[in-house]
Amino acid sequence: MYRKQIKVLDCSIRDGGLINNYHFTMDFVKAIYRATCDAGVDYMEIGKKLCESEEYTREDYGRWNFCDEEDLRQVVESYECENPPVLTVMFDVGRVDIESLLPAEQSVVGMIRTACYVPDIDKGLYLAKRTKDLGYETTINIMASSAVIETELIEALEQANEAEEVDYLYLVDSYGAFYSEQVTSYLKLYKDHAPNKELGFHAHNNQQLAFSNTQQAIIDGVNLLDATINGIGRGAGNCNLELLLNFLKNPKFDVRPLYKVIQEQMVGLRKQIEWGFNDIYGISGHLNQHPRGAMKQRANAEIRDNCYDFLIDSTAD
Amino acid sequence: MYRKQIKVLDCSIRDGGLINNYHFTMDFVKAIYRATCDAGVDYMEIGKKLCESEEYTREDYGRWNFCDEEDLRQVVESYECENPPVLTVMFDVGRVDIESLLPAEQSVVGMIRTACYVPDIDKGLYLAKRTKDLGYETTINIMASSAVIETELIEALEQANEAEEVDYLYLVDSYGAFYSEQVTSYLKLYKDHAPNKELGFHAHNNQQLAFSNTQQAIIDGVNLLDATINGIGRGAGNCNLELLLNFLKNPKFDVRPLYKVIQEQMVGLRKQIEWGFNDIYGISGHLNQHPRGAMKQRANAEIRDNCYDFLIDSTAD
Repeated sequence: MYRKQIKVLDCSIRDGGLINNYHFTMDFVKAIYRATCDAGVDYMEIGKKLCESEEYTREDYGRWNFCDEEDLRQVVESYECENPPVLTVMFDVGRVDIESLLPAEQSVVGMIRTACYVPDIDKGLYLAKRTKDLGYETTINIMASSAVIETELIEALEQANEAEEVDYLYLVDSYGAFYSEQVTSYLKLYKDHAPNKELGFHAHNNQQLAFSNTQQAIIDGVNLLDATINGIGRGAGNCNLELLLNFLKNPKFDVRPLYKVIQEQMVGLRKQIEWGFNDIYGISGHLNQHPRGAMKQRANAEIRDNCYDFLIDSTAD
Repeated sequence: MYRKQIKVLDCSIRDGGLINNYHFTMDFVKAIYRATCDAGVDYMEIGKKLCESEEYTREDYGRWNFCDEEDLRQVVESYECENPPVLTVMFDVGRVDIESLLPAEQSVVGMIRTACYVPDIDKGLYLAKRTKDLGYETTINIMASSAVIETELIEALEQANEAEEVDYLYLVDSYGAFYSEQVTSYLKLYKDHAPNKELGFHAHNNQQLAFSNTQQAIIDGVNLLDATINGIGRGAGNCNLELLLNFLKNPKFDVRPLYKVIQEQMVGLRKQIEWGFNDIYGISGHLNQHPRGAMKQRANAEIRDNCYDFLIDSTAD
């Protein structure tokens, strides 16, 4: 599959940080940055840009949850590259200090993605407008679409469609619940109700379908695709970037630097933290549930593999 | 997805046996049989039916490589079930003693599947004819289609199409190389050149696409689908039966007994033998290679995770 407009966004650090509260070392993040540079990836999302609070302290949460400009510069300046990826950070509605955001021309960040649930769409669009005014590329990532009442989703799509400040509008399979036919049907809703927008897609691998659903999104016309190196990401993880680049065939991509950083960095990390498909996540994906219950079970060594018990508990009346 | 004609074949023991030379215990096989009974699975493939030779000794190869009638009876008689699956065994061309095969009416086996490569299609069809004459349901599983010259494959398909003794004709993605668009395109070849035949599909999970490719085969009209409990199978393994039953929605299926046997049997087994997706198999699938190189690397503890080295070695001129 080759289409010139297709762009790929690596969110290894941002989605992977949900596993370890963003406690990646500076060296690890530099290695990931270097790999995305050498692989020809279009965007690299390096973390969330939240503000500190009593709930979100620097002690508990690592620096990639705050993405201070000097930390990001340290990464970017660690490796010279002719066509580096556009650096991206994520906003969560309600946890952001928009007043302290630098104008894009003074920052190494080029794109800000705002994640919001459907009921928060107005707040999300406000943040998109403010970030666009400061000169950033913008996205709105509507989370958990699979668990939203359709009329509510349509209203949000129509609002986003009218918002000039939104460059990309995302379908996010937060619960890893979609089959490919559902990717197609949700994207039809997006195209019908937000025809002005370029679309993005973000998958989760609960049912081993992150990669295939991303392929389906490509077939259905989506041009901005999220993926992560080795599939790192919360719970069952994401679409594997290295598999996706193989599929895309665009000569600008090179998959070898990704396998290099997997061998040198990810293999060791996999011994410390867990991500990827397993039975428990497969069940929660099929049941279209938030992964928090599944993650809780996986975190308990005594019952982490008790998938039958999890199924029975999850489907009790 | 619901279509009345769709049938599911569990090949956990037969494909899983390729990992451990068919050294499953009798109790394990009984547990799998019971799970397929309770889950409402249509066929259960319990092993290969090969003959002993100097190369294939009883000492080195477990009993599920030979499937003696008395072993199979021990399994079937261990659990009473109103609608048990049809018991299936596999023939490999060139390793079979057809003369010693009981007539179907004297055996607990109901279906014999003959696996053959394209150059052996005549030998395969001969075995299918002999087994059909003895009263068995039959299949021809054409292996490694992704690595065959198309005109050769077409010739084999046309021969199989003319052979009344073949009940099902299989597309087998032996190397885990297919994307869904290729499943569709190969199945079109099958439908064009073997229009008389019901089709089967057997996937491998090298690129995390076994489940999604099986869905694609269903969409393209295939009515006999291979899968295994927990995805057990050689190398990257197979389509997970439990995920597939969720997708199929047919009320005759019940996924709970599968998760029960996973929790009680597979979790322990996973500590002894390995199957499932990893980077090395992802590379060999993408390169459309026989998994033997990847399996060799996985078997060497020192280099088993060196995916970059494997990629470079596998693509050297």
